[in-house]
Amino acid sequence: MVVVKTSPPPTVPVGNKVNKGFPYSNGSIKPHFTPSLNSFINLDQGDPEVFAPYWRKKSEECTVVIKGSDLMSYMSDMSNVCWFMLPELHDAIRRLHRVVGNASAGMDKYIVVGTGSTQLFQAALFALSPSSDPSNHNPINVVAAAPYYSEYQDEVEVLRSGLYRWGGDARVYDKNEEYIEVVTAPNNPCGSIRRAVARSEGEGKLIHDFAYYWPQYTPITEEYDHDVMLFTFSKCTGHAGSRIGWAIVKDIEVARKMTRFIQMSSIGVSKESQIRVAKIIGVICDSYQKIGSSLQSDDLFFEHSKCMLRERWDKLRAAVGKTNLFSLDKYPKNYCNFTRQNSETYPAFAWIKCCGGIEDCESYLRSLKVFARGGKRFGVDGKYARVSLLCRDEVFNEFLTRISNATRDY
Amino acid sequence: MVVVKTSPPPTVPVGNKVNKGFPYSNGSIKPHFTPSLNSFINLDQGDPEVFAPYWRKKSEECTVVIKGSDLMSYMSDMSNVCWFMLPELHDAIRRLHRVVGNASAGMDKYIVVGTGSTQLFQAALFALSPSSDPSNHNPINVVAAAPYYSEYQDEVEVLRSGLYRWGGDARVYDKNEEYIEVVTAPNNPCGSIRRAVARSEGEGKLIHDFAYYWPQYTPITEEYDHDVMLFTFSKCTGHAGSRIGWAIVKDIEVARKMTRFIQMSSIGVSKESQIRVAKIIGVICDSYQKIGSSLQSDDLFFEHSKCMLRERWDKLRAAVGKTNLFSLDKYPKNYCNFTRQNSETYPAFAWIKCCGGIEDCESYLRSLKVFARGGKRFGVDGKYARVSLLCRDEVFNEFLTRISNATRDY
Repeated sequence: MVVVKTSPPPTVPVGNKVNKGFPYSNGSIKPHFTPSLNSFINLDQGDPEVFAPYWRKKSEECTVVIKGSDLMSYMSDMSNVCWFMLPELHDAIRRLHRVVGNASAGMDKYIVVGTGSTQLFQAALFALSPSSDPSNHNPINVVAAAPYYSEYQDEVEVLRSGLYRWGGDARVYDKNEEYIEVVTAPNNPCGSIRRAVARSEGEGKLIHDFAYYWPQYTPITEEYDHDVMLFTFSKCTGHAGSRIGWAIVKDIEVARKMTRFIQMSSIGVSKESQIRVAKIIGVICDSYQKIGSSLQSDDLFFEHSKCMLRERWDKLRAAVGKTNLFSLDKYPKNYCNFTRQNSETYPAFAWIKCCGGIEDCESYLRSLKVFARGGKRFGVDGKYARVSLLCRDEVFNEFLTRISNATRDY
Repeated sequence: MVVVKTSPPPTVPVGNKVNKGFPYSNGSIKPHFTPSLNSFINLDQGDPEVFAPYWRKKSEECTVVIKGSDLMSYMSDMSNVCWFMLPELHDAIRRLHRVVGNASAGMDKYIVVGTGSTQLFQAALFALSPSSDPSNHNPINVVAAAPYYSEYQDEVEVLRSGLYRWGGDARVYDKNEEYIEVVTAPNNPCGSIRRAVARSEGEGKLIHDFAYYWPQYTPITEEYDHDVMLFTFSKCTGHAGSRIGWAIVKDIEVARKMTRFIQMSSIGVSKESQIRVAKIIGVICDSYQKIGSSLQSDDLFFEHSKCMLRERWDKLRAAVGKTNLFSLDKYPKNYCNFTRQNSETYPAFAWIKCCGGIEDCESYLRSLKVFARGGKRFGVDGKYARVSLLCRDEVFNEFLTRISNATRDY
C-alpha cells in the first residue's frame, strides 16, 4: 500500500487577503482542538458545530448508503425546470416548509436547488438582472440595509460583472434606477427581522435570504410568500459540508434563469448531497408528523436546538453584564406558530458593540485571542463585531471566560 | 403520511434557449427509456451512462455509508491551501495520477477540488486574470483553438465579467495583449491531441483541460506537467452526478486564488461527493496495485472501458461507411504507457462531418430524430456536429441503425 503524504502546510499570515473571512490562527486551526488560554478561538465564521451532538444521537437513523452505480447521471428529472434536482429532495423541501410553516412552498412555486445558498444568491442576481437586452449596458444596483451580510458585496463584485454592481446601503439608496434589494431575516449579523427598505422611484426586485428563519433561531410568525426566497441546509440543521441550499421562486422565467446559471456554474448540484439532505429532512419531518409519537421535545430537532441557543444567549448576556465593555441588542418576544410559544430571537451570531472607548471591536477581541468579524465588513463602523455562537461547547465556554474577564487595557 | 405531488412539468419547446444544450424531446426525456423508431434520442450531451454496467458490478465494493453526524463542518483541512478538500480525496487524487501516469501530481503541486471541472475552469480564469491591479480595466482575452468546447465561450461571457472576455479562435489570435489559452486534450469535440497554438507577442497563460486524458479514451503517451491542469471525475469514471473535478496547480498563488473563487462561488464542495469519489478512486487504484491480483482485464476499469469504446468506434465506422453522407476523423496509433499497448484514440464524442451537400449537420441529424450539437457551437461551420458515444447500449445501437439507413432526402 502506497503511503501518500499531503503537501506541507503553506505559511499563511493571519488575515491573508486571499483567504479573507477564513483567517488562520498562529499555527493551523485543527478541528476538535481543545482551547486553552494561549490559543486563538475562531468565531469569525459560522461553522455550525453546535448541532453535531444532536446528529450523533440520530446518526443511525439518518444513515445513507450509496452504492457504486448510484446517482451517476448528470440528469435528475427532465420534467422539472430544475432538471438536476432529485425528486426526493424536491419533495422533502416542500414537506419541510409545510411542517415548519416558515415559507409558502406549494405547487404554484418552483424550487431551485444550489451548492449552498451562496450559489443561489448569485443565480438570483443573474436571473433578476436585465441581461436579456443586449443594448442595456447598465449594471443593475444591488443593495442591502446595513449592517448587511459581509459576503454580499464581495460576491457581487468578485467578477466585476457587467450585469450587476454593488449599490451599498439600501436605506440610503436614492437613485432613480432599477435595483435589487437583498432582505435578510433574521439578519446576518444583527439578528433583527428585516423588511425591504429601499425608497427609490426605480423598479425594485427583492431577494429574501431566510438562512436563519428556522424555529431554533427565531419565532415563526408568518409563512412568508415572496418572489425569491433563499434557504440553506447549513443553517437549518448544521450540515454545512453538504453544500445544499434551495430557492423558492414564484416566476418560472426566474426559476429557469437561476437553473441556467447553476448549469453554467457547475452543471448541477452533488447528487450525493441531495440524497442525504432528503434523508435528514425526512427524519426531521417524521419526528413531527409521526402519529402517536412519544418523542420528548429534547428529541425534536428544532425544540432541542432552540433550547441550546437560548441557554447560550442567557450565558452570553450574563457574561457581557460582568463588564462595561460590550453591549448586545435586545430582541422582542413574539408568538411562534411552530413551537406554539412566545419567545425571543436567539440569533446564530452575537452582534457585539464595544463600549468604553474601544473603537475597533475586532482588534480588541483579537487581543483576547478571539477571531471575530469587524463591523466594517458589514457596512457599519468598527465598534461592532460579529461573533459566531454556533461553535462547540468548549469553544463557547472559553469565549465566555475571556469576555467575562476582559478589561479595557490592550 | 402526507403525499406530496411534484410540480407539473413545464411546457418547454424543443431547443428552448434558456436550456440551451439540454433540449427536451417532444415530451419529457425520461431516464432509461427504450428508444423506438419514433422517439428522439438525445446525443447532444455527454451523459456518461456507458460506464454504469461496470459500476453495477462493483456496486458493493464501492459502497459508501454516511451517518447522520458525518461531514458536517464547512472546513476540511485548514493546513491545506484548498481548505475545503477532504484529505482522503487529496490523497486519492495524487494516488490515481501516480497509478495512471497521465499527469504529474507530486508533492510539489497543489490540488484544488471543485464542483466539476466547470467550476474549476471559471476559478482558473479568475486566478489567471490580472485582477489584483485595480487600475487595470482591460479584460484579458480567453482563446481556444476551434473547434473548441461549446461551453467555454458561454462560461466566459455569462456574467459579462470585467476580468476576462472571449477572444475567439486561438489559431488566429494576433493581438499584442496578454491572453489565456485553453488547451483541451483530447479535444472536445474532435478528439485530437492538442497543444498550445496561439502566436502572440502578448504574455500567454495556459489552462490545460484534460477531461478526456484517461486510458479508455486515448493512449497515455506522457505524464503532463503544465501550470494548470483540469480533470473531471464525470469523464474519468462516469460519475457525473457527483460533480467533482480537480485542478493540479504549480503556483501557490494561483491555487489560492482558485480556492478563493470556489469559496465565493459555493463556500467549498460537497463533502459527500468528495468522500464517495475518494472511495471509488481507491477501488480503482487497489485493482491495479493489488499484489498478486488475479483480476482479468475485463475487471479492470480502464481496460474494460477502452474495450467498450473501441467496439463502439468499430461499429460506428462500419455504419458510417454504409452511406456517403458522413465522415469521421482518423486518429493515429500511439503507444500507451498505461496499458502497454499500441492503440488509437477512442473519443467520447464522434465529430461527424456531413457530406453530400448537407450544410447543416445538426438539422440533418434532427430529421433522423437524433439530437446532436452543431459545429457553430464549437466555432466552426455547420457541416459538423458532435454526437455523444457515452450513451447506453440501446441508444447507441438505435443511433447506428439510423445512421446506416440515412439517405440524402430530408
